Amino acid sequence: MTSKITTLSGMQCVVLGGGGFIGTNLCRALLTRGASVRGYSRSRTYPAALDGVIWTSGEFSDRTAIARALDGCDIVFHLLGGSIPDSSNKDPLGDLMSSAVPSLQLLEVCRAAKVRKILFVSSGGTVYGIPNAIPIPETAPTDPISAYGISKLAIEKYLALYHYLHGQDFCVLRVANPFGPYQSPDRRQGLIASLMHRISRGQPIEIWGDGQVVRDYIYIDDVIEALLAAVTYGGPHTLFNVGSGVGRSVLEVVRDVAEALGHPDVQRIHKPGRATDVPVSILDIARIEREVAWSPRTDWARALRLTADWIRTI
Amino acid sequence: MTSKITTLSGMQCVVLGGGGFIGTNLCRALLTRGASVRGYSRSRTYPAALDGVIWTSGEFSDRTAIARALDGCDIVFHLLGGSIPDSSNKDPLGDLMSSAVPSLQLLEVCRAAKVRKILFVSSGGTVYGIPNAIPIPETAPTDPISAYGISKLAIEKYLALYHYLHGQDFCVLRVANPFGPYQSPDRRQGLIASLMHRISRGQPIEIWGDGQVVRDYIYIDDVIEALLAAVTYGGPHTLFNVGSGVGRSVLEVVRDVAEALGHPDVQRIHKPGRATDVPVSILDIARIEREVAWSPRTDWARALRLTADWIRTI
Repeated sequence: MTSKITTLSGMQCVVLGGGGFIGTNLCRALLTRGASVRGYSRSRTYPAALDGVIWTSGEFSDRTAIARALDGCDIVFHLLGGSIPDSSNKDPLGDLMSSAVPSLQLLEVCRAAKVRKILFVSSGGTVYGIPNAIPIPETAPTDPISAYGISKLAIEKYLALYHYLHGQDFCVLRVANPFGPYQSPDRRQGLIASLMHRISRGQPIEIWGDGQVVRDYIYIDDVIEALLAAVTYGGPHTLFNVGSGVGRSVLEVVRDVAEALGHPDVQRIHKPGRATDVPVSILDIARIEREVAWSPRTDWARALRLTADWIRTI
Repeated sequence: MTSKITTLSGMQCVVLGGGGFIGTNLCRALLTRGASVRGYSRSRTYPAALDGVIWTSGEFSDRTAIARALDGCDIVFHLLGGSIPDSSNKDPLGDLMSSAVPSLQLLEVCRAAKVRKILFVSSGGTVYGIPNAIPIPETAPTDPISAYGISKLAIEKYLALYHYLHGQDFCVLRVANPFGPYQSPDRRQGLIASLMHRISRGQPIEIWGDGQVVRDYIYIDDVIEALLAAVTYGGPHTLFNVGSGVGRSVLEVVRDVAEALGHPDVQRIHKPGRATDVPVSILDIARIEREVAWSPRTDWARALRLTADWIRTI
C-alpha cells in the first residue's frame, strides 16, 4: 500500500491539531505549496491565520467527526496530544485516554479511509527520558519520566504496527522544543513564547529550578520544512529527530530573548524545579540531515528577532 | 519508599491473575515458602490446585475489588493480561483498554495501599518484535509486531515512571515461553500444552507455517524461581529476561513431546503462518544469571516428562 508521494501540490491534507502552534504554521505552509488543507482541533488559537483552511472544530475522541474530516484525504498530520508533560504525571490515565486511545481510533479511521501517509509529531523532549549520552540519537533508550512521553511512544509503536500489519505508510518526527510565531504565550508549554510575552510587557519571569536545564530549541519554520520533507521522503527510515542539535540553558535563553526585545533588565522569580524536567536534552539530528537532506536553517538570533517581531503584533 | 525484602515468610502476597497458568504455580510456590497468599482473577482454571489461597474472583477493570484485594498487602504480582498476541492485532484498542488501562489503575491502587514491591510478568516473546540479533538482551530495540506487546511495553514504562515519581519499588520479568503443569491445553497460548493434550489422545496436531519458528521454552518451575528471586533482589536493575537461553523449532518440539509421551506417530495438519509470529526469539539471560544468581535448572527432557506426567492426570 506504500505509494511514493513526490509533491504536495493538489494533495488533500488533513492537519489534526491544526488550531495549535505547529498546526497553524503547518496549515499555512501547506497552502503555500498548493495543497488542499483541512484543519481539525477543539479550537483555533489564531483563527485569522487559518484563512483558506477548511475547518472543523471537534474533539479528538469524536471518531465520526474525524472520519468525516479524513474522507478522501491523502495525507494526515497527527499533531493532537492529550495533555502536557507536567500535568500528565498528575493524571497518567487521563493522558493515556486522551492521547494513545484516540490515536488508535485514528489509525483505524486512516485504514478505512485508505490514507496514503500519516505524519506524526512525537516529542523529542520526553520520549527518551534522562539521556545516557548527549546528543541523543534515535536509537537511544526510551525511558520517559512523564506519562505524556509514554503515550507518545506508544503511538509511535502503534504506527509501526499498522505499517507491519496493513502496509500503512507513516513517518514519526520527534520534535525538540519549537518556538516562533503563533505559539501562544498563555499555554504552559513554550518557554520562549512565555518569556517574550512577559519581558516585552516588563513583567517578571518565572525560572523553575536553577535555570541550568538545557533544551534544544528549534525555530518553527525549520520544523515545518522537516514535516513537509518527511511527506515525500521514501527511504527506509520511519523515525527522525528534528531539532537544532544545539543546547541552551534557561538562563541563556532569558538573556538572548531579553536582548532580542531590547529589554536588558528582567525581574526573575525563582520557583522549585519540576520532576518532569530532564536536566539536558539535545537531539542528534544526523539521521534526518543525511536521509532527508534537511537541516535547521534559521540562525538563533534571527529566529528570536522574527519571534519578537511577531509577539509585538498580538 | 524502596525497602529491602529479604524473606517471603509471613509476607502478604497478592497474585493478580492467580487463576491462570503462571499464577496457579506461583500461588502454590508462595504458600510453600510461608507467605500468605491472596489470588485474584476472573476465574480459576484448576481451583483444586489453589487450596490455601484466599480467593477473589473479579475483573481486572474493577478498581474497587482490586483495592480490597490489595489492602494491607506487601507484594503484588501482576500477571493479568488483556488478550493474546494474535487476537490483540484484530482489536488493538480492546487490548489497550483491557491491559494498559487497568494496569495504570492498578498502579494508583498500589500507591494508595503503599505496596512494597510490584513484580510484573511481561512478555519476552513479543516486546522485542523481530530481533536484529540472537540471543536478545534486555537492551535490544523494542518494536513489537503485536498490540499485545505494545501494551506490555507501555506497562513496563508506567512502572518505571511510578518508581521515578513516587519511589514505588518494582521489577519486570520478560518471560519467554513457559510450559508445565497447570497450563491449560484449551487456551490458544502454549504450544507444548496443546501438543501434549492432542498427541496423548492420538489427535492430529496443527502446525502454523513451516514449523521452523524458533522459540525459547522454559519450564514453569524455573520461571517461578526467577519471580521469587526477583522479590528479594535489591540491586540496580528493574528489568530481566527470563528464558532458557536455548531456541527450539516447532518441529523439534513436536518430535520431543511425542517422544516424552511415547507416541512417535503424530498426524500433522499444516496451516498458514501468522503475522504475529516472530521467526526466531531466544532471550539472552546473562543479566539475571549475573545479578540474581538464578539459572534455568530443569533439563528439557525432564521438564517434558514432568509435563507429560501431569497431562495424564487431567
